[in-house]
Amino acid sequence: MSDICPTLRRDGDQVVILDQTRLPYEEHYLHLNSLACAATAIRDMQVRGAPLIGAAAAFGMALALRHDASDATLHHADGVLRQTRPTAVNLHWALDRMRAALSPLPAAARSTAAWAEAEAIRSADAANNAAIGQHGLTLLRQLAGTRKPLQLMTHCNAGWLATCGHGTALAPIYAAHSAGLDVHVWVSETRPRNQGLLTAWELARAGVPHTLVADNAAGWLMASGQVDCVIVGADRIAANGDTANKVGTYLKALAAHAHGLPFYVAAPHSTIDPACPNGAAIPIEERSADEVQCLAGLTEDGRIVRTRIAPDTSAVSNPAFDVTPAGLLTGIICESGLVQPDALASLTRH
Amino acid sequence: MSDICPTLRRDGDQVVILDQTRLPYEEHYLHLNSLACAATAIRDMQVRGAPLIGAAAAFGMALALRHDASDATLHHADGVLRQTRPTAVNLHWALDRMRAALSPLPAAARSTAAWAEAEAIRSADAANNAAIGQHGLTLLRQLAGTRKPLQLMTHCNAGWLATCGHGTALAPIYAAHSAGLDVHVWVSETRPRNQGLLTAWELARAGVPHTLVADNAAGWLMASGQVDCVIVGADRIAANGDTANKVGTYLKALAAHAHGLPFYVAAPHSTIDPACPNGAAIPIEERSADEVQCLAGLTEDGRIVRTRIAPDTSAVSNPAFDVTPAGLLTGIICESGLVQPDALASLTRH
Repeated sequence: MSDICPTLRRDGDQVVILDQTRLPYEEHYLHLNSLACAATAIRDMQVRGAPLIGAAAAFGMALALRHDASDATLHHADGVLRQTRPTAVNLHWALDRMRAALSPLPAAARSTAAWAEAEAIRSADAANNAAIGQHGLTLLRQLAGTRKPLQLMTHCNAGWLATCGHGTALAPIYAAHSAGLDVHVWVSETRPRNQGLLTAWELARAGVPHTLVADNAAGWLMASGQVDCVIVGADRIAANGDTANKVGTYLKALAAHAHGLPFYVAAPHSTIDPACPNGAAIPIEERSADEVQCLAGLTEDGRIVRTRIAPDTSAVSNPAFDVTPAGLLTGIICESGLVQPDALASLTRH
Repeated sequence: MSDICPTLRRDGDQVVILDQTRLPYEEHYLHLNSLACAATAIRDMQVRGAPLIGAAAAFGMALALRHDASDATLHHADGVLRQTRPTAVNLHWALDRMRAALSPLPAAARSTAAWAEAEAIRSADAANNAAIGQHGLTLLRQLAGTRKPLQLMTHCNAGWLATCGHGTALAPIYAAHSAGLDVHVWVSETRPRNQGLLTAWELARAGVPHTLVADNAAGWLMASGQVDCVIVGADRIAANGDTANKVGTYLKALAAHAHGLPFYVAAPHSTIDPACPNGAAIPIEERSADEVQCLAGLTEDGRIVRTRIAPDTSAVSNPAFDVTPAGLLTGIICESGLVQPDALASLTRH
């Protein structure tokens, strides 16, 4: 796992991102050189995953302030970036942190400070990933016992592609694999955007044994004794522990509960929203019908083609997230260790 | 609903089927003129849906016996057809019925009798559909009360495309729509084969208001109060009421249970397997990885193209069904009326 490619890095006065909309077909990097580019990259999911969205917003702010770091520009950039995605709270957390660091400074000092603060957010995220990996490894070792392999299930992509380091949900899995623990991962496709394919791509690259399944298969796999533990990421955790994550997470949590299987959320403190009392207060993003109706794939001769899979004679609803009630979580694996949902109030955010 | 096209009909000494693998893109009919053609049509899902699979097997037997109706041919045809799909019990039921009708006859009388018996199976299925529709309509009327619209959810396709009449799960919905009840149907895509698109195509054609969603959205829709009732079909119902249906059904049943929503299975008596004590005894078909990895869609210029959506660097598992425990069912809507899972033993199969 030392050879992972950065999802986002500074290059002079630009920001370079791995364009995740082209994966797993092409590994293509984009140079962002404006606020507008950064906002588009977040909105169109060229960067995605709650922690990475936060870091991308911070770097987007640095891009916005390069030539004019007035209060008006700062305010404008904050507004534009804050509206890109509604559910992931890391976006607001990162922008709050940028404003708190930059607002007190004279305009002339802000550009340099913005790059430094964005970089600090990025490196802190990588460090948090590493800590989550180690805390998760301890849990997986306990769970493994004599199970060979330990059968894990995840949903969506909460790996290095979703963060600035080794990931959240996948960090314990990478740590376990590196430590020689025999693990196998069930990867659910995660319609409609198929981010499970990003997870499969990551795991294949890292040599972690895994199997891709349709989202619908999760219940059957658990019922037939083929799953020992579920680990997912999060986009926002309310103060009471209710957790918004990629749509479909709740169905897996219900099935894990029905079969007495541990269900962990792995997320940094920045994903916790103390201002949000419970899941009912989390806004759920409704995305375009097009994501359900159309899909990109490779033709036999290797071209990427976007085809229409559903006729436009039917209405479409496309909620991008759902909320898993705190009562269905075994625990939250944070950089500070395993936390019970009812103990979130005692955590501080940095 | 009077203008539905037959999914399967006799044409002289051939059988004409609507090729469901080309839907919703093309309405194309295939002429089957041999046992091999009929077996392929069932195995490759050109005909699909438990009741239709049963009827197709019966007509496949008639095709096999056209020129040679010896005991050996009867036995061979039975073996070939019985092995096409493992989960839907209607296949075995129809073949048992054909054997019982044909075996006692002299070979010279079997061909004519085979066509007649297959036709009887087909028309009985259509009559059963109509009865299921009326019994379901009574339930939906009670449930509707002042709800406008009554919000229904289904999974996979258990409409006219899956049967010889108006469908099983969709029959009550069609009956309700015809009776002027204000209904709206949530249609889940049903990966990996996307039979939800067949349901959407049927409902659009019949003018029934509906919305297509990713399978993952079911939990969120129920949690947010947007669903009043779930109705699905079945491929095999064990003697204790455990029900095998398209993979993903169990996740919907768990979510319906968590939110106190009625969850009905609609199926004819021929789907009940009295010889199967419970869900653990139902064989679950594992289908090709290709169904998860590749998908057909329409290009901008209207061509149907099959593209690869998942790289072959990952293993794939593709269970086609799952089992919903009897305890999660509100009831089973049969041609004889609403039956509780624990009262199945009192039903007789015809």
